[in-house]
Amino acid sequence: MQTRIADRMSRLGTETAFSVSLEAREFAAKGNKIYPFHLGDMNLRTPRKIIDAAKKAMDEGKTCYCPCAGIPELRDALAKEIGRSRGLKLTKDNVSIQPGGKPVIQKFILAFMNRGDEVLYPNPGYPIYESQINFHGGIAKPYGFKMGEKGFSLDLEQIENLITPGTRLLIFNNYHNPMGAESDSKEMAKLAKLCVKHDLLVLSDEAYFDIIYSGKAKSIASYPGMRDRTLILYTFSKKFAMTGWRLGAAVGPNWMIEQFNRLNVNDESCSNHFIQWGALAGLKSTNKETKQIIDTLRRRRDLACSMLNEMTGVKVFKPNSTFYIFPDVTEAMANLGISDVEEFRKFVLHTTGVSFCTRRHFGTPMEEEDSHYIRLAYSGIDLKDIKEGLAKMKKAVENPASARKWRAGKFKAHSS
Amino acid sequence: MQTRIADRMSRLGTETAFSVSLEAREFAAKGNKIYPFHLGDMNLRTPRKIIDAAKKAMDEGKTCYCPCAGIPELRDALAKEIGRSRGLKLTKDNVSIQPGGKPVIQKFILAFMNRGDEVLYPNPGYPIYESQINFHGGIAKPYGFKMGEKGFSLDLEQIENLITPGTRLLIFNNYHNPMGAESDSKEMAKLAKLCVKHDLLVLSDEAYFDIIYSGKAKSIASYPGMRDRTLILYTFSKKFAMTGWRLGAAVGPNWMIEQFNRLNVNDESCSNHFIQWGALAGLKSTNKETKQIIDTLRRRRDLACSMLNEMTGVKVFKPNSTFYIFPDVTEAMANLGISDVEEFRKFVLHTTGVSFCTRRHFGTPMEEEDSHYIRLAYSGIDLKDIKEGLAKMKKAVENPASARKWRAGKFKAHSS
Repeated sequence: MQTRIADRMSRLGTETAFSVSLEAREFAAKGNKIYPFHLGDMNLRTPRKIIDAAKKAMDEGKTCYCPCAGIPELRDALAKEIGRSRGLKLTKDNVSIQPGGKPVIQKFILAFMNRGDEVLYPNPGYPIYESQINFHGGIAKPYGFKMGEKGFSLDLEQIENLITPGTRLLIFNNYHNPMGAESDSKEMAKLAKLCVKHDLLVLSDEAYFDIIYSGKAKSIASYPGMRDRTLILYTFSKKFAMTGWRLGAAVGPNWMIEQFNRLNVNDESCSNHFIQWGALAGLKSTNKETKQIIDTLRRRRDLACSMLNEMTGVKVFKPNSTFYIFPDVTEAMANLGISDVEEFRKFVLHTTGVSFCTRRHFGTPMEEEDSHYIRLAYSGIDLKDIKEGLAKMKKAVENPASARKWRAGKFKAHSS
Repeated sequence: MQTRIADRMSRLGTETAFSVSLEAREFAAKGNKIYPFHLGDMNLRTPRKIIDAAKKAMDEGKTCYCPCAGIPELRDALAKEIGRSRGLKLTKDNVSIQPGGKPVIQKFILAFMNRGDEVLYPNPGYPIYESQINFHGGIAKPYGFKMGEKGFSLDLEQIENLITPGTRLLIFNNYHNPMGAESDSKEMAKLAKLCVKHDLLVLSDEAYFDIIYSGKAKSIASYPGMRDRTLILYTFSKKFAMTGWRLGAAVGPNWMIEQFNRLNVNDESCSNHFIQWGALAGLKSTNKETKQIIDTLRRRRDLACSMLNEMTGVKVFKPNSTFYIFPDVTEAMANLGISDVEEFRKFVLHTTGVSFCTRRHFGTPMEEEDSHYIRLAYSGIDLKDIKEGLAKMKKAVENPASARKWRAGKFKAHSS
């Protein structure tokens, strides 16, 4: 029966980060303490006001279907909020509520990508982009980043070189997972110009737009010529610590939103009704609760970055957004005599319990890459464990003897 | 920019029943009372135990991600419940939690249908089947029903004649929307034999499996040779009056469920975390609450069927399952001088406020059809309004003069 699986399933990818979770759980099951830097889940509570409003909606019987595009009240509030924060004029007809951020990626591809169309997407990047492009018969073309004096920046020259007459879509993830990269106004303006020049439609994944530590976030949708060609992926997950609620939205020009609504009718009827009332309370509340979330994340970031930079052979920029850190561990690996970054990850996990992902979990490395990176998420680990875990990691990465010993033990285990 | 919509979107269908809702809302906005028989939503409350358990889960912080296949506790409980009610041996590895029933249709098509494969589906039937088959490049082949002495039955001869070497999948919806049709054991055994003989994979849409008024429901998955080729669509929506919660499941052989889980990772990460704890409480509770729901629906069915059968020119079987009635109005239409069933629907709506769908909202009529049917849902209307509405409808359908008058008024309105 296995032969009856459709061909397209062989092109479907996954989030390999989940296999790191599994490895960490297995290691924990043997009685080891785990320091969980591997997943972008949050160990913070959803603000009380949101929970209370969702409960109230349940009690009021908001347990039946709602319109496929979402409740008008939430679409109105989101139009206002996205309009304010991105400098756009929006109404509820520019908003389609979705059961999370991921459905926006799938629906964007389904609605605007023909089979054989080329789609540019970031690599390293969220692995679902590549997966959905390939799955639905597109040609996934990765673009990379450059490491500069002040952090990572887009390789705009490479992006322009990649564009052919067959290139139709571009996925942009400012406030970037996994690198924490942030385009400044100048860079975003250049990218926008490229998109207009080559008539590309853009999916702007703004999942981390509100997780910013200084300055004001900007959306590529607000640059000249972009409004009518850009679809914003919005999610309640990060800003309001609502990852498990599965609620997001597609925000864009009316002609795009109409297609999202058609897909909603077919794919899920509507998003859960009563949690939309919870999210609405979140949007209407003062920023006190979300500020608390940001402040907590900031303290974690500052501690983790400074401890990582103190490790010999590890260097990292302190990102101004997201809850990810993307350290260069090339030198540390050389010191330890490890040439494979996955080997490095396993060594640190098995000798210290510190669990993280590597660059490999975010796409196939590009030809020109010659440095090794790991990704640490600090959204699901508190200050005490950051301190304890990274102190252990420092000892391990600065101790070539322990790496030799670990490898010897591993080889022994393998041959036995 | 409209030209940038992907080609496949031109093959995407919809639920035209929503346009009936819109018409009803517009008619109500003019100050008219509506008797809502058009939508399969429910005006019943979700059982208290389910709401309380979901609230408790929110308070306990079950607001972060859960495993992509769903929480193991709910998968275990569902394996047990589906195993018990369908006579199957199942474990949690046979269950993938989904954000509703509709996602099961889409994922079944994506995972097991290649482009160009022929898929048999019921017509009349839930319009999303045809839409998803066409959308993802399959060939949708409708099969029909026969009206017999005791109600509707499958046209098995037609089904066998439709099967070609290119036919790979069959969608079966016992306890059928919109007809309320129910296959007896003999009929289901014959259909199962056909599926085994022609090596078809089967999506068994069992959304109404638990909405049955007498006897014991059966699943085609339990017939010889079917277990490993049948995917059951399960939903919490109807049994527990949870339509707006958007929670369902795919239940089937391990090799199919693995593919559903891969799609979950890509499409939505997971279903809402805390509502799964609510659903679990539902499965674990005694049947008191669900029995109340069934009893309420039964009273509505009995009243509506007897009142419809009292109308001159209207005849209807009393279905033993679902909350739909599918009356034959051919004679009533002839009496009124109306030849188009949509015209009949509009006449009744605009002269009485009674709003229902017609056969047309459930697929394109087949060549051999020569009777006219309407569909009434009684899940969202209470006894008092059923009585009041259908009394008005009786007067209207037995009064050819009013139909002439209505048509004259309509033509006048058109020409003015």
